[in-house]
Amino acid sequence: RYGYFGRTTPEVVRLMFCKVSGCLTEGRILLYKSGEEMVSINTRDTTGIRMLQKEALEVVLLTSQLDSVTQSLADKLAERTGCQVISVGEEPLNDLRPMVEQRKLGWKDVAYMGSDTQDISCLNLAGLSAVPGDAPVVVINAAKYTCHSAGGMGAVREFAEHILLQKEKAKSQMEQQRIDRKNF
Amino acid sequence: RYGYFGRTTPEVVRLMFCKVSGCLTEGRILLYKSGEEMVSINTRDTTGIRMLQKEALEVVLLTSQLDSVTQSLADKLAERTGCQVISVGEEPLNDLRPMVEQRKLGWKDVAYMGSDTQDISCLNLAGLSAVPGDAPVVVINAAKYTCHSAGGMGAVREFAEHILLQKEKAKSQMEQQRIDRKNF
Amino acid sequence: RYGYFGRTTPEVVRLMFCKVSGCLTEGRILLYKSGEEMVSINTRDTTGIRMLQKEALEVVLLTSQLDSVTQSLADKLAERTGCQVISVGEEPLNDLRPMVEQRKLGWKDVAYMGSDTQDISCLNLAGLSAVPGDAPVVVINAAKYTCHSAGGMGAVREFAEHILLQKEKAKSQMEQQRIDRKNF
Amino acid sequence: RYGYFGRTTPEVVRLMFCKVSGCLTEGRILLYKSGEEMVSINTRDTTGIRMLQKEALEVVLLTSQLDSVTQSLADKLAERTGCQVISVGEEPLNDLRPMVEQRKLGWKDVAYMGSDTQDISCLNLAGLSAVPGDAPVVVINAAKYTCHSAGGMGAVREFAEHILLQKEKAKSQMEQQRIDRKNF
Repeated sequence: RYGYFGRTTPEVVRLMFCKVSGCLTEGRILLYKSGEEMVSINTRDTTGIRMLQKEALEVVLLTSQLDSVTQSLADKLAERTGCQVISVGEEPLNDLRPMVEQRKLGWKDVAYMGSDTQDISCLNLAGLSAVPGDAPVVVINAAKYTCHSAGGMGAVREFAEHILLQKEKAKSQMEQQRIDRKNF
Repeated sequence: RYGYFGRTTPEVVRLMFCKVSGCLTEGRILLYKSGEEMVSINTRDTTGIRMLQKEALEVVLLTSQLDSVTQSLADKLAERTGCQVISVGEEPLNDLRPMVEQRKLGWKDVAYMGSDTQDISCLNLAGLSAVPGDAPVVVINAAKYTCHSAGGMGAVREFAEHILLQKEKAKSQMEQQRIDRKNF
Repeated sequence: RYGYFGRTTPEVVRLMFCKVSGCLTEGRILLYKSGEEMVSINTRDTTGIRMLQKEALEVVLLTSQLDSVTQSLADKLAERTGCQVISVGEEPLNDLRPMVEQRKLGWKDVAYMGSDTQDISCLNLAGLSAVPGDAPVVVINAAKYTCHSAGGMGAVREFAEHILLQKEKAKSQMEQQRIDRKNF
Repeated sequence: RYGYFGRTTPEVVRLMFCKVSGCLTEGRILLYKSGEEMVSINTRDTTGIRMLQKEALEVVLLTSQLDSVTQSLADKLAERTGCQVISVGEEPLNDLRPMVEQRKLGWKDVAYMGSDTQDISCLNLAGLSAVPGDAPVVVINAAKYTCHSAGGMGAVREFAEHILLQKEKAKSQMEQQRIDRKNF
């Protein structure tokens, strides 16, 4: 039974990248007559992030120049979630590769959540990847998991629960393997 | 007929605890470029709270450190709803038990509404308990009643109507019992 | 055919009362850390109001002490919609009866739109009455027309189109009656 | 095969007019106690606009006096989307005809997106036209394409993808015709 072929190991990730716009937020930008801007996040999603952090998983939030997430909003997000917030370019892969290597991780150790075409290469590479349920079809096709919830409405929480479930499965599978090894 | 077995008595509660974040609000936190924060409540829900108060039921609103409900927002909520607003920790049970005892009530006299994992022990204990329709599954399983409405969209109103209906039923059942006792 | 029984005449109304909270708005109150408040209306609904005004139908908006519609918001609403905005008490009927009599109208000439229990007697009395699709069941039962749209999402527009359609029907029926009378 | 009848050529447009209120926004106007106003747009839609601009398609945003889009909001929109923002009257056709002629285009080269009755003549004229899924029925009937998404929730993005797909189809059809012409 040892050396069994075809057993799929659930992915256990150590680092999660999550786009702010469209995943943690609804993607809405609120424009004021006076020029102020605003975004909306959900406590359910921030709870999901805290669930991952409690399991020693590092969560990094990604913003891009195209978003409405200005520096002061990024600071507020960092403070509220306890996550590092970094700005990525048109191809997030270029910005994230050094971070993954610096932590001596492979892309299979990474979870990625994105909601638009720029995220496709990262969604393909990451060990676990997800999109909110309201993402464009072409982006949904690139992700390993499609959330039922829409962006800003619990999608991050849903992915967090999926990640923790995979970890739980992997743990019990390893447990089983140890028992198997002892008995045979 | 007196001493009849198997008759279930509808719960009549005297005290309601209701989480603000995710029940009275959508759980959304609106972040401004300038750093302001905002939550949204629904007049339908505040009407529901007034309906309970008219029936001499005390309603207490609960906030937690994890919410975006700052002191000034709590004050606004207290003013608008006429409810006491208190802050609870990771396990609300510890904060609420003294309040229940102080009022010489048991947990069966309490209605509890919550929307996340921290609320599970209170949802289990309370005589009547409810979650908004958009709560995580594990929390839904702990509650006696699942609202059709989502948090911040009428869920509190729906639970208020459920509570009043139970009270109405209990009253007509007692009426019936009095008639039965006279006749036999 | 003249004096024909059983022909139902479509209602033609001259005056419309419309609750602001829950009909023209979603019923949401947005609370700020700083204490500001905000409501949200939809351009589709304000277009509906203008459609009625073009047909010489007077539209009066109703607010109540329980709403978050403060005087300055009422002024903004009046300015944007060209409607009179008045504040009504727990039983709007008491405030509106003098207005209906002053205009030498009966309640059959009135259209009423409301979304909560206080509106029930007016919904019953008015010649045409409607509730948004997300109103509580007891209120829906009192109204002659239930909108598919929710409050603040086009319900007022939908009722406006319903009112104009009734007027159109009445006109073509009168036309038909004139033809009938000439021919027989 | 050359001169084949009945072959429908996909429309290729060079200029897109898009109503702001109800298409790019949800049509919501947020009114503050203090008198401020706010509209909400979606990053998915602004991404859609950028997709069109990359393909050298000019996008012009339309506001009207009836909207809540004040000059300062229009300026913010222009800055964020890189589009010209112009104000149109009750009949947008009168304002847009000179713009179409000035660019030496016909209406078949124009894509139009609107959401209310004033947009009907433009929706009928334009080579490609669309309405958000939540538009009134009479307006839906005038448009060539009805989006699944509602206004402010991705409808503009959906229409942008539709436009680019038509362009793609036209290109491959022309390719095919060139091959056909060579071979016969």
